[in-house]
Amino acid sequence: MAEAIRDDEGDKNQNMAAWLLGIKTLKIQPYHLPTLGPQDVKVRIKALGICGSDVHHFKSLEVGDRVALEPGISCGHCSLCKAGSYNLCPEMRFFGSPPTNGSLAHKVVHPAKLCYKLPDNVSLEEGAMCEPLSVGVHACRRANVGPETNVMIMGSGPIGLVTLLAARAFGAPRIIITDVDVQRLSIARNLGSDETVKVSTDIEDVDTDVGKIQNAMGSGIDVSFDCVGFDKTMSTALNATRPGSKVCLIGLAKTEMTVALTPAAAREVDVIGIFRYRSTWPLCIEFLRSGKIDVKPLITHRFGFTQKEIEDAFEISAQGGNAIKVMFNL
Amino acid sequence: MAEAIRDDEGDKNQNMAAWLLGIKTLKIQPYHLPTLGPQDVKVRIKALGICGSDVHHFKSLEVGDRVALEPGISCGHCSLCKAGSYNLCPEMRFFGSPPTNGSLAHKVVHPAKLCYKLPDNVSLEEGAMCEPLSVGVHACRRANVGPETNVMIMGSGPIGLVTLLAARAFGAPRIIITDVDVQRLSIARNLGSDETVKVSTDIEDVDTDVGKIQNAMGSGIDVSFDCVGFDKTMSTALNATRPGSKVCLIGLAKTEMTVALTPAAAREVDVIGIFRYRSTWPLCIEFLRSGKIDVKPLITHRFGFTQKEIEDAFEISAQGGNAIKVMFNL
Amino acid sequence: MAEAIRDDEGDKNQNMAAWLLGIKTLKIQPYHLPTLGPQDVKVRIKALGICGSDVHHFKSLEVGDRVALEPGISCGHCSLCKAGSYNLCPEMRFFGSPPTNGSLAHKVVHPAKLCYKLPDNVSLEEGAMCEPLSVGVHACRRANVGPETNVMIMGSGPIGLVTLLAARAFGAPRIIITDVDVQRLSIARNLGSDETVKVSTDIEDVDTDVGKIQNAMGSGIDVSFDCVGFDKTMSTALNATRPGSKVCLIGLAKTEMTVALTPAAAREVDVIGIFRYRSTWPLCIEFLRSGKIDVKPLITHRFGFTQKEIEDAFEISAQGGNAIKVMFNL
Amino acid sequence: MAEAIRDDEGDKNQNMAAWLLGIKTLKIQPYHLPTLGPQDVKVRIKALGICGSDVHHFKSLEVGDRVALEPGISCGHCSLCKAGSYNLCPEMRFFGSPPTNGSLAHKVVHPAKLCYKLPDNVSLEEGAMCEPLSVGVHACRRANVGPETNVMIMGSGPIGLVTLLAARAFGAPRIIITDVDVQRLSIARNLGSDETVKVSTDIEDVDTDVGKIQNAMGSGIDVSFDCVGFDKTMSTALNATRPGSKVCLIGLAKTEMTVALTPAAAREVDVIGIFRYRSTWPLCIEFLRSGKIDVKPLITHRFGFTQKEIEDAFEISAQGGNAIKVMFNL
Repeated sequence: MAEAIRDDEGDKNQNMAAWLLGIKTLKIQPYHLPTLGPQDVKVRIKALGICGSDVHHFKSLEVGDRVALEPGISCGHCSLCKAGSYNLCPEMRFFGSPPTNGSLAHKVVHPAKLCYKLPDNVSLEEGAMCEPLSVGVHACRRANVGPETNVMIMGSGPIGLVTLLAARAFGAPRIIITDVDVQRLSIARNLGSDETVKVSTDIEDVDTDVGKIQNAMGSGIDVSFDCVGFDKTMSTALNATRPGSKVCLIGLAKTEMTVALTPAAAREVDVIGIFRYRSTWPLCIEFLRSGKIDVKPLITHRFGFTQKEIEDAFEISAQGGNAIKVMFNL
Repeated sequence: MAEAIRDDEGDKNQNMAAWLLGIKTLKIQPYHLPTLGPQDVKVRIKALGICGSDVHHFKSLEVGDRVALEPGISCGHCSLCKAGSYNLCPEMRFFGSPPTNGSLAHKVVHPAKLCYKLPDNVSLEEGAMCEPLSVGVHACRRANVGPETNVMIMGSGPIGLVTLLAARAFGAPRIIITDVDVQRLSIARNLGSDETVKVSTDIEDVDTDVGKIQNAMGSGIDVSFDCVGFDKTMSTALNATRPGSKVCLIGLAKTEMTVALTPAAAREVDVIGIFRYRSTWPLCIEFLRSGKIDVKPLITHRFGFTQKEIEDAFEISAQGGNAIKVMFNL
Repeated sequence: MAEAIRDDEGDKNQNMAAWLLGIKTLKIQPYHLPTLGPQDVKVRIKALGICGSDVHHFKSLEVGDRVALEPGISCGHCSLCKAGSYNLCPEMRFFGSPPTNGSLAHKVVHPAKLCYKLPDNVSLEEGAMCEPLSVGVHACRRANVGPETNVMIMGSGPIGLVTLLAARAFGAPRIIITDVDVQRLSIARNLGSDETVKVSTDIEDVDTDVGKIQNAMGSGIDVSFDCVGFDKTMSTALNATRPGSKVCLIGLAKTEMTVALTPAAAREVDVIGIFRYRSTWPLCIEFLRSGKIDVKPLITHRFGFTQKEIEDAFEISAQGGNAIKVMFNL
Repeated sequence: MAEAIRDDEGDKNQNMAAWLLGIKTLKIQPYHLPTLGPQDVKVRIKALGICGSDVHHFKSLEVGDRVALEPGISCGHCSLCKAGSYNLCPEMRFFGSPPTNGSLAHKVVHPAKLCYKLPDNVSLEEGAMCEPLSVGVHACRRANVGPETNVMIMGSGPIGLVTLLAARAFGAPRIIITDVDVQRLSIARNLGSDETVKVSTDIEDVDTDVGKIQNAMGSGIDVSFDCVGFDKTMSTALNATRPGSKVCLIGLAKTEMTVALTPAAAREVDVIGIFRYRSTWPLCIEFLRSGKIDVKPLITHRFGFTQKEIEDAFEISAQGGNAIKVMFNL
C-alpha cells in the first residue's frame, strides 16, 4: 500500500495530509515529515483503507519497494513486548490516532521493521487489507483454529467477514455465520460460509437462535467468535458452543455485559479476549500471495485524495449499509 | 478413606447407609449393595468429608488396602472422555447425587479404576480431602500456575483455601487472598497466604478494592481465581489482573453476571471455566505423601455415623461459620 | 472399506481368510469368527490396502453402513491410554499382526468404537487409505504444522507422499520433498510438492544436499520429516532445519544411528518421535470428504482375493518400484 | 554480582581487566571502557563465577544498586529474537568470549536491560550464580517440568547439579541422578537428590544401568536430562525414559553420536535440544530470594583478582576434581 522512497525525496512538492481538526472536521493541509531516525524509512502512501492504515518495510528495503505498513509502534522493552505480546504494550503509539495526523498523507515516516515488502502478485490495495485481516488472523491464532475446528461467527460486518476468511485459511472444515441482516448474510455466503443463520436482536430469542445455529451446524461448535459484542450475541455464543471449548470476544459494542457466564464456565467454555493483532503481517501477505485468501471482494468503495472525497468516504463508512471496506488511492 | 474388602464380606452385618428421603430428611436404613461387575471393587468406608465423598482402588488392589475414591463415573466413549476431558462427559453419574444414596454408607461398590491406594503416611481422613483439593489442583492446571505465576484468590472459604494450598504446591511465588470476613482471612494467612485483603460486598467499591489488591501484591497479578462468583468478585478479578493473563471462575454463586467483560477482553484477560476435576487423585495423593500440602488444618469438625450426628454435621456445614471441612468417621 | 453386517449373517457361506503360515507362505483357508462381545460389530471387508488394514464402526452403526476400520486395539486403562496416547499402550493388540490372521478375510469382528462410518462421497478404497494417511496426519499434529510452517520431507515413498498430502491439508505454505529416485520425485511433484530435490545416498554429500535443499526452499525450514531413517537422511534433516525447530523421525530403516545430534541440540532443533497414529480417522475422513486430500492417485495396483493374486500383490508391494499402494477388493 | 556506578566514575583509578592473550596466557592489563550508549549502564564488578559472567540492571536502576548481569547481547530484530528465542540469535555477541576481553574486569559497560537488580537478601556471589543456574532453569522450562514430572539427570557435574536444583524448584516430586564418581553422587545426595545411581562408562553396560536406574526410580521416568553428552549417557537416557516423554540433551561432550535413536522415536521419546538460556534471570533471582534454591553449597573456591590467583582459579576449574564453582571477588 506504499512505496519506499529516497530520504531526500519529497522536498519539491509539498506533502499534504488530512488533518482531523475536530469532530467531523477533516482538512487537507501541508504536513512536514519528522526527521528520520536510523531505523526509519520514508514511504509514499498509495492505497489506504479507512480504519486500517499502515505501511512498512524490512531490512534491505530498497527505494521503489512496495510495502504494507503495520501501524502500532510498541516500546519494545516492557515485559509484554519481551514476551511477544506487543499489542498489549501500555506505551503503544498508534499511527493514525489523534493527536498525530495519521497515515492519511502522501508521505509518512515509519519504523523500517514495521514495513513489509509485498510480493509482485499482491496489489497495494490488497496490502492495505492486511490491517483488518490481521484481526481475524490474530483471533484464529489465539483460538487455535485448525483443520479440526468447527467455527461459528456472530456478525457479518467487516470484522466478521475477515474472521471468516481467516478461519477458512487456517483450515476450519465447517463455518457458520450469523447476522440480523439477510443482505450481509448473502455476502458471507458468497465469501465461503458453509451456513448462514438469521438471528434476532431480542435477548428473549437466545434459546431459539442457539437451536437454529446448532441445527445448521449439525455437529459441535468448537470455537465461536463474537464479532459484535452485545449481551445477545455473547449469550448466544456462550450457549451454542460445546463444552470444553472457546468463545472469542472481538466486537466491543458494549462495555458492561449481562450474560450467563457461570453456566458457560461450568461447561469449561473459556472466554478469550482479542486486542488488535501481533506478528500477523507476514502471514497475511502469505495468504494473499498464495491465493488462500482473496480480499478483493471486501473492497466495495474507492476514493481519491481530495477534501470532498475524504468526507464522502468517511460518511459512507460510518453509514454501514453495503459498504464493507472503503479504500483511498493517493 | 476406605479399605478394600473381600467380595463375599459384609453379609453378616447389615450394610447401613444414610438415605436422603426428602429435603432435609436423612435416614439411616439398610442398603443392599449391587452385584459387582468385573471391574468393580467392594470397599468399607471409614472417613468421609461432607460434599466430597468417594473411595476407589486400582489394579492389584488387595484386600485391606486403604484407598481414596474419585466419585464421578464417566461413560468413557464420548469425544470428551476420549480427549481426557471426562469431567465434561454428558453422561457422568455422580456418586452421592440423588437418586443414588451416595457414599454415606458402610460399604459401597465402586469401579476399581477410580480407587487410588493411599501411601502409609497418608491417613484415611487426609485421603478423603482429595476431593475438595482436586478442585484447586484442576484449576491450577487449567490456569497453568507455576513458579512464575503471581496468584490472587477471591474468597477464603473451603474452595478458596484448597486453591491456595494447590497454587502454593504448583510453585506460585506470591499469593494474595481476599474475603469480606477477617476471621477467614486470618485462617488463610495461617495456611500460607503472603497477603490478605479485606474487600467489601458493594459493587461501587470495585476500583477501591482493585487498588488495595494491586498495592498489596506489589507486582502484576498473573492469574486470579474467583472462588465466589458474584458480580463484585468477578469484576474485581477482571480489573485487577494484568493484561494477557487469566481469570478462573470457580465459584458458582450467580447464574447471570453483569460484568465489564469487554475491557477485560480488550486487555486479553481470558476467562477460564472450571468444572470439578479430572485425573487429579494421583497428584493430590503425591502432594499429601510428600508433605507439600497439609490438609489437616482444613478438617475442623468430626462426626460419627448416627442419625443425630449426621443431621448435626449437615447443619454445621450449611451454616458456614468457622467450619471449613466436616468429616465423618464410620 | 467394509460394511456392517447382521450378527447372524455369514453362516451360509464359509468365511475365508488369508493365513500367514510361514515366511512368504500365505494360504486362503476358512476362518471361524470369534463370538461377538457387547461392544463388537461384524463387518464384511470390501477393500483393503496392503499394510493398512482395518475396518470400524460407531454407535448407531446400522447394517449396511460403510465403514473404515482403525486396526490397533489398546487396553484403555493404562496411564498412556488415559492420557490419550493410546498408540503407545504397552498391551496394544494389532489387527493383522501374527499370530492373528489379520484383516485379510471376508468378514471380521472388530470393536465398534474403532469403526468409522464413511460419508457417501468417500469410496471404500479411499476409506482403506485412512490407515497410511493417518501416519502423515499424526506426524503433522505432533509437529504442529500449520499455515506458517515451511516443510521439508525426506523420502518420496508411500509414507513421504502421505506426509506431503497431510502437510498440505494442515496448511503448510511451502513444501519441499527429496529422494534419490527422479521418478518418485516426479510423482511427488504431481501430488503438489512445491519443490523437489534429488539427493544422494553418500554420507559425504550431506553438506552439498543441505545447500541444495536450502536454496530450493529459499527460506527457513520449520519442520522436517525424515520418512526414511538412515544416517544420511537424518543428518541432512538435522542440518537443514532452522534453529528452534523440529525434525520428525518417521522412517525406521535403521536401529542405531550415527548422527551429529549435539550441534542440532545446540540449535534447539528437537527430534520428535512418531509411532503410528492416534485419533486420526475422523480427521482423515473429513479430509477425504471435503476434497482437501485426494488419495486416489496413490492407489496404483488392485487385486482380487485369490491365492495367486494375493501372492502377486505382496510381491509387487515388496519390490517397491512404481507401486505406491496396493489394494485388495474382496 | 556488580554495582551500578556513575557514568563519570572510574577515571581516577585505571580500570584493569584480565586479557586472554593466547591459549593459557592471561594478563591483567588496563581496559579503557567504550563510550556508553543511551541504553547502557556502567557497573563495577564485584563477584564473578568462572564460565558464568554477567551483571545487569534495569530501568530506574540507580547508582549503588547491586545487579546481576545476563551476558549475551542479541540483535533484537531477527525472527528468532522477535519470537522470544533470542538465545538462538545468529548475531549473538557474548560477553566474555574472544575477541572481547570479557567481564573479568573491574568495570564494564553493559546494556541496562540485561542488568537485573538483586534483592537485599541475595548476595553478589549468589547473583553471579544466576548464570549457571539459568542453564538448569531453561532446560526445566523447555522440558515442562512440574509437580507431576519424575526426573532423571545423567551427570553430577556443575550442570547436572544446577539442573537438580532447578528441577526441584519446578516441583519435580522425585529426582534421580547418576554419575561414574561416587564422591560427586554424594554431593548430589546432599543437594537433595532422592536417589543416586553409580553408572559405568562402558557402552556395553547400557541395559544394566537402565535396569538399575528404573529400579531406583520405582516408577516411570518422565523427563531425562543428559548433562554429559556421550554415546553411553544418551543411550542410557533414551532407553530409560518412559514412552511419550522427553530426553533433554544439555551436555555437549561429543559432536557425532551413535545412539539407538529409532527405537526411542518409535516410543515417541522426543530429544529436546538446549542452548544456554533465555529470560531466566528474574526467575533465578526469585528462586534465590525465596530460598527455593540455595546455590551457596555450589561455590567451592574463591579467588581474588591478581595474575597468580586468576591462573590458579582457571587451573582448578579445568581440573574438575571436587571444584564445582570457582568464584572471583574483585
